[in-house]
Amino acid sequence: MDQIVSLCRRRGFVFPSSEIYGGLGSTYDYGHYGVLAKNNIRNRWFEAMVQERDDIVAIDSAIILHPRVWEASGHVEGFTDPLVDCRTCKLRFRADKLEDAQCGRKPSKHPGETPDCDLTEPRQFNLMFETHVGPVQDTASRAFLRPETAQGIFINLKNVLQIARRKPAVGIAQVGKSFRNEITPGNFLFRVREFEQMEMEFFVPPDEAERWYRYWIDERMGWYRRYGLRESKLRVREHSEEERSHYSRGTSDIEYDYPIGWSELEGVANRGDFDLTQHTQFSGTKLEYVGEGGERYVPCVIEPAVSIERILVAMLVDAYDEEIVAERQRTVLRLHPQIAPVKAAILPLVAKDSEMVARARALYEELRLLHMVEYDDGGAIGRRYRRQDEIGTPFAFTIDDQTLADDTITVRDRDSLAQERISLSAAADYLADALARPWQTPKPA
Amino acid sequence: MDQIVSLCRRRGFVFPSSEIYGGLGSTYDYGHYGVLAKNNIRNRWFEAMVQERDDIVAIDSAIILHPRVWEASGHVEGFTDPLVDCRTCKLRFRADKLEDAQCGRKPSKHPGETPDCDLTEPRQFNLMFETHVGPVQDTASRAFLRPETAQGIFINLKNVLQIARRKPAVGIAQVGKSFRNEITPGNFLFRVREFEQMEMEFFVPPDEAERWYRYWIDERMGWYRRYGLRESKLRVREHSEEERSHYSRGTSDIEYDYPIGWSELEGVANRGDFDLTQHTQFSGTKLEYVGEGGERYVPCVIEPAVSIERILVAMLVDAYDEEIVAERQRTVLRLHPQIAPVKAAILPLVAKDSEMVARARALYEELRLLHMVEYDDGGAIGRRYRRQDEIGTPFAFTIDDQTLADDTITVRDRDSLAQERISLSAAADYLADALARPWQTPKPA
Repeated sequence: MDQIVSLCRRRGFVFPSSEIYGGLGSTYDYGHYGVLAKNNIRNRWFEAMVQERDDIVAIDSAIILHPRVWEASGHVEGFTDPLVDCRTCKLRFRADKLEDAQCGRKPSKHPGETPDCDLTEPRQFNLMFETHVGPVQDTASRAFLRPETAQGIFINLKNVLQIARRKPAVGIAQVGKSFRNEITPGNFLFRVREFEQMEMEFFVPPDEAERWYRYWIDERMGWYRRYGLRESKLRVREHSEEERSHYSRGTSDIEYDYPIGWSELEGVANRGDFDLTQHTQFSGTKLEYVGEGGERYVPCVIEPAVSIERILVAMLVDAYDEEIVAERQRTVLRLHPQIAPVKAAILPLVAKDSEMVARARALYEELRLLHMVEYDDGGAIGRRYRRQDEIGTPFAFTIDDQTLADDTITVRDRDSLAQERISLSAAADYLADALARPWQTPKPA
Repeated sequence: MDQIVSLCRRRGFVFPSSEIYGGLGSTYDYGHYGVLAKNNIRNRWFEAMVQERDDIVAIDSAIILHPRVWEASGHVEGFTDPLVDCRTCKLRFRADKLEDAQCGRKPSKHPGETPDCDLTEPRQFNLMFETHVGPVQDTASRAFLRPETAQGIFINLKNVLQIARRKPAVGIAQVGKSFRNEITPGNFLFRVREFEQMEMEFFVPPDEAERWYRYWIDERMGWYRRYGLRESKLRVREHSEEERSHYSRGTSDIEYDYPIGWSELEGVANRGDFDLTQHTQFSGTKLEYVGEGGERYVPCVIEPAVSIERILVAMLVDAYDEEIVAERQRTVLRLHPQIAPVKAAILPLVAKDSEMVARARALYEELRLLHMVEYDDGGAIGRRYRRQDEIGTPFAFTIDDQTLADDTITVRDRDSLAQERISLSAAADYLADALARPWQTPKPA
């Protein structure tokens, strides 16, 4: 994990946020390659969930919704962690995670382990960030930053059904930031205070719920395989009855074998009719379907929910490789080409050769209209290749002496290190074809 | 404007947020076509600002930054509106906008116009949404939702320069939500409490600032022309000295002639070295450049800043057209094909003809892997065309009797209404070419 964190920092994928001000716990800023990788993950998800289907539509609801939404959803009452205060050191801790915390007086001990510690009884602490809308800070103006995007979907079901002219099963997909005021955040991007969720709520007749729940577990597993995660690092773990949320009739985690061990990558839940029933009751608006025979019913909801951050970490971990090539160590991110931040590097072999530079710039200026590519003339060619390997660029086009003679260039493959010569004028087609082709993962199982 | 709002509602571009709970002032949720249009606007901006240039990199910073950031930037002290309370009706009003407000007792009057009104002296009210990070709600844990994305760029300048291996002029671009606790919001998407900003900070040597300021005004005007906004509806208005923000050495608004009149679409500002100097002072971290000769200096910042919401409204307004065709009214959105939510509709002429349906579905399933397209078999063909016109779909592919005989389909052009027959197997190439081609606006000047 340290290698990943270090690479992310060194190559500008992820920085600790507000670093020049001493940082802000569990908050990260994304640099250039991090943004590009996140954009690719978001776009691939959106393609699979919206563009390539005709039973799912997109929505983008507000982050600050009407506060009654969170009463209906149960978050105001129940989205809490138990906290204890230490009367001696004045710190607060999660009552159920004391073994992970450090005593404020004796950091080598856990809270409660020293006679100094004077812990209160646990109190429930709500994880929603609170704010106030409008000029008066009182109970009436209190509002929350959404802790999940799902509720913004439920409250718009009626609007969507009116317009979408669709019958069940129908899904609504949303991508956007959610916020949780975690007390014991940590572990790099695993538990952060703001994160970008990708959630899809699939509304189905109750008697089809179990089938669709299984369907979505399979679909999402297929998506991870499609984008190259190793089969041996993926598994589905079904929650036990005790482990499930109050609204859940069935939840499975798609887990990834992260360096910290098997951990949730994505959750797929059968939320039943809990949310729609609650919003119907709290809002007085019926959120229901009309069946073929005119009968009305509240649909069940199947929800695949994931954050871009967890996918990003899984893909980086899965792609990270070190190998010895020609007696030198090479670090390479074997990212799926559709996920890689940069699709191709365009490299003039000799940066001071004006003819090579002219051809390289012309190729770069042609390709950048089509794909995210990089022009790089900084340093020896081997150093430039290694830099592109570290950010996972699948192809490098090099313009060399022979280019000036016969208008061919070399293409270097990031994974196999094979080099072939192609016509300079064929580079755009070569890249388009390579990116469209199904990808054979070069990773060991 | 009412027509646009009504179309947005009817066709599922934009809904008032939290509607089933009575709404939440000046907050909107985006439906399917709204999301698709916003994604296109964001992607076109990102292409122009990042992908097609090698002097700008991307970043994505947190929404909740270290609170000292907003002290350094001047927002804690100065990002305020003057408010007055009415001691009689207990409402609050913007002191500088009393003429737009309604008295709480006599809504036909403005506050202060009736003897009942008892207004306090104006007080300054900060427009940043406040929240608290961590389990204790006190001054030390107080934090803010960012009111602009720019500061997240400034505080990361050092990180970016270390990694990007770039010399000035260099830019950093960011897209993301910002929040302002507006007291008198309103006017549809013009003044909303959360909005998606697209900002780029371009760091230049001080003696080049004026030149780059002019350059970016031209560049951004060019972008709006490229995506089809009418020349006659665009203008640049330079702020007078009194009008400028305290940090600004020059600001120009790119204005659009909205139905409410000429109003800001995008702002381009020369922020000078104000922000970097402030952050250097507050953080103790030098944010500077090293020039060619080794001299150190604080660069000046040129900032084009816009929200997706304002672009969306301008593009919808500009594209909206009504005309009489064959004695029937047609409403059409003449959106640039790269902005249009759906690129093509695939329509079987007779929805009950299984051979037409089979061919239409096959074409749809081919095209949806490449573009956002729609399959529509609902209702008479004329009704389907009109529906696609209203959401701005530039092309419709219709599968009819002749298709079954000779494998040709009709292509209908949204703007000219011309229909031509092409080979079914050529549809994918036809669409790719049509989307890549420079667009000739069909709109009158």
